[in-house]
Amino acid sequence: MTKQERAVRTRHALLRSAAAAFDQRGYAAATLSLISNGAGVSPGALHFHFENKAAIAAAVELEAADTLCMVATHVYMRQGSALQALADTSHALARAFTTDVVVRAGFQLGREAAYVSSLDLHKDWERYVHRLLARAAEQNTLQPGLSHRQMAAMVVAATVGFEVLGQGEREWVSAHSLTGFWRLILPSLATPEALCELDPTGGRLGVMSRS
Amino acid sequence: MTKQERAVRTRHALLRSAAAAFDQRGYAAATLSLISNGAGVSPGALHFHFENKAAIAAAVELEAADTLCMVATHVYMRQGSALQALADTSHALARAFTTDVVVRAGFQLGREAAYVSSLDLHKDWERYVHRLLARAAEQNTLQPGLSHRQMAAMVVAATVGFEVLGQGEREWVSAHSLTGFWRLILPSLATPEALCELDPTGGRLGVMSRS
Repeated sequence: MTKQERAVRTRHALLRSAAAAFDQRGYAAATLSLISNGAGVSPGALHFHFENKAAIAAAVELEAADTLCMVATHVYMRQGSALQALADTSHALARAFTTDVVVRAGFQLGREAAYVSSLDLHKDWERYVHRLLARAAEQNTLQPGLSHRQMAAMVVAATVGFEVLGQGEREWVSAHSLTGFWRLILPSLATPEALCELDPTGGRLGVMSRS
Repeated sequence: MTKQERAVRTRHALLRSAAAAFDQRGYAAATLSLISNGAGVSPGALHFHFENKAAIAAAVELEAADTLCMVATHVYMRQGSALQALADTSHALARAFTTDVVVRAGFQLGREAAYVSSLDLHKDWERYVHRLLARAAEQNTLQPGLSHRQMAAMVVAATVGFEVLGQGEREWVSAHSLTGFWRLILPSLATPEALCELDPTGGRLGVMSRS
């Protein structure tokens, strides 16, 4: 392994260790020695990569934002129907939240008063929801006469709620929970014709990721 | 003012000062000296009332829970329609959240990894939503064929989302936001007959509080 490969690997281990500490203990209680110990590296190695705790937290947030962006782009590019893409993205993000501690820590950091976040993952998600609903309107799949702004606010609020509640109880971010949500809410958003074609279960994602 | 009245007043000032510190800086950064200074009392007076920071945080949470319980009970007892009570309670809680720093701090503390909460305000809210939907079912005002569990999960997730997003941007917990939410969602929950009678704006609350 070259020196550069070792450095990349150490940085990655530090980010995951920091994310685990932020996720479980919060920003304030996640000490630098906890983080370096968790990554199995010396305090010196930590300081070689990151100036201080805020710099590690910013890197964790950035990696979480990158992951969310990749997940969303992946779904967005594959789906013809914007409403289907919206439901599928929420399922894919819930999976990322469940399986990736960096994603969880990214959201947790955004909610902590002790840490001034440089990003806003909720704002990114809000913009994405607005974009998909605008596209759904172009596709004539939205119920006429309803405010797109109110639709977007409802979807954003509910999905943020699932994520916050999921931090304590994972059942909230299960495929089952999200399927129940979309099953209930899609008839309020979609035209009857569009509704017949929509799958609220995130089931097509499984096919997508195997393809 | 008797000694006892002074003690009650000091305790109240300490709770509000602590709530403001938790709300603005988070649990870890809210030092005891910040809290006693904010209340205009000596560190000794603080220690007379509270053993440590965790004890103050627990008292803030308890007061927030009491306020929420009072708000919910007030609406619950006045309303005949359970669905109307559900919408009205969400409006009343949003007002409490906007105007009362102790309520905001109560929710903020529940979300902080740095503080192990003794209460669960979200769980209380979830139980209340379940109770109201069960009552709405008895009143035959719910759409038949839908899962009450899924309805409750959607309402809880969305309202928790409004509250979390409202911590950053107050517009999320405005009457306008909540009205938009209920206007969109009530047609999915209520029978057409019940829907005609429902007011999504929280407007009846104003009448109630003036009466």
